[in-house]
Amino acid sequence: MKTAALEFWFDFASTYSYLAAMRAEELAARSGVELLWRPFLLGPLFTAQLGIKDSPFNVQPVRGRYMWRDLERLCARYGLGWKKPTTFPRNSLLAARICCAAGDAPFVPAFCRAVFAANFAADRDINSPDVLGELLAAQGRDPIALIARAATPDVKAALKERTDEAARRGVFGAPTFFTDGEMFFGHDRMDHALDWARGKR
Amino acid sequence: MKTAALEFWFDFASTYSYLAAMRAEELAARSGVELLWRPFLLGPLFTAQLGIKDSPFNVQPVRGRYMWRDLERLCARYGLGWKKPTTFPRNSLLAARICCAAGDAPFVPAFCRAVFAANFAADRDINSPDVLGELLAAQGRDPIALIARAATPDVKAALKERTDEAARRGVFGAPTFFTDGEMFFGHDRMDHALDWARGKR
Repeated sequence: MKTAALEFWFDFASTYSYLAAMRAEELAARSGVELLWRPFLLGPLFTAQLGIKDSPFNVQPVRGRYMWRDLERLCARYGLGWKKPTTFPRNSLLAARICCAAGDAPFVPAFCRAVFAANFAADRDINSPDVLGELLAAQGRDPIALIARAATPDVKAALKERTDEAARRGVFGAPTFFTDGEMFFGHDRMDHALDWARGKR
Repeated sequence: MKTAALEFWFDFASTYSYLAAMRAEELAARSGVELLWRPFLLGPLFTAQLGIKDSPFNVQPVRGRYMWRDLERLCARYGLGWKKPTTFPRNSLLAARICCAAGDAPFVPAFCRAVFAANFAADRDINSPDVLGELLAAQGRDPIALIARAATPDVKAALKERTDEAARRGVFGAPTFFTDGEMFFGHDRMDHALDWARGKR
């Protein structure tokens, strides 16, 4: 029997993607579902769909204020570290390119969680090569080689194509999950998406 | 000991408010929490905060398409009737005014559920006095008296003040829940809001 799989589309700058990234692997394993990590960039989608060049949470401050309190409560509920980033949204381009360069290498999930934790639990600049290099080294990888590879035209094109694919498939925010032709939006739908992946509908 | 209470703010035109309205009373009862039904109008908030005169799901069709599929799946998951309304959003003014006229009368929750079901499970015009009169009569109320009372200046002012209060308290969508100074947005947060109301944090 083929293992059920769930595509997990996220942006390292996205607050609710942080929650999903920290919880997804454990929940997927418990459901017997394989998790496919798919970093992409939200910015081009927001620009194309909403005509904005910022996070909707900044453009609509009433909603933004709620989101920050919601995040704080949810992190407490799930026992996750939380420190409101002093910059939001942070530039997630280099981190996303490094992931694209790494493909489905086994260290990617742990690296992704480390990037999210740097952004949302330690308030660090996740676009800094020094910060990302440190997180790669902590996974036993060669920071210099991977960061250099992230800057190649092939990898830049791969991330652009990934983001274009998100737009074609109807993504409008993050995190977004795909399984068996169905799309589920938001950390709040992660459990429903996992149910769907394993045939519980 | 004071009974814990949860304010449930909703608009009869709102799709996710439908889910919340159909499920809230049972979940609240199971949690030992008193539910306070608070109809208001989303339209003025969308205009003030987003500069739009339509549902955000219509203004942003990528998101709208997802919402309709999401609703269909959620109704199946929770065993709720579902028929995509041929008009969206429906005008919810008269239904909201009738609720304001009725205050916290015991028939209000059942009437609200009937209005939501008319809109989202039977595709009926919930701004029609005939339809609303039928739903009031089914609750053993006097349709003519209540619909007349809904048109008085006092009731109109009460609904306007209710909507202004929502704006002052930071509401940006529906359903929204308040308990103990905390705001929770969305049907997806109903269980967290109930947990908070009964002191589980």
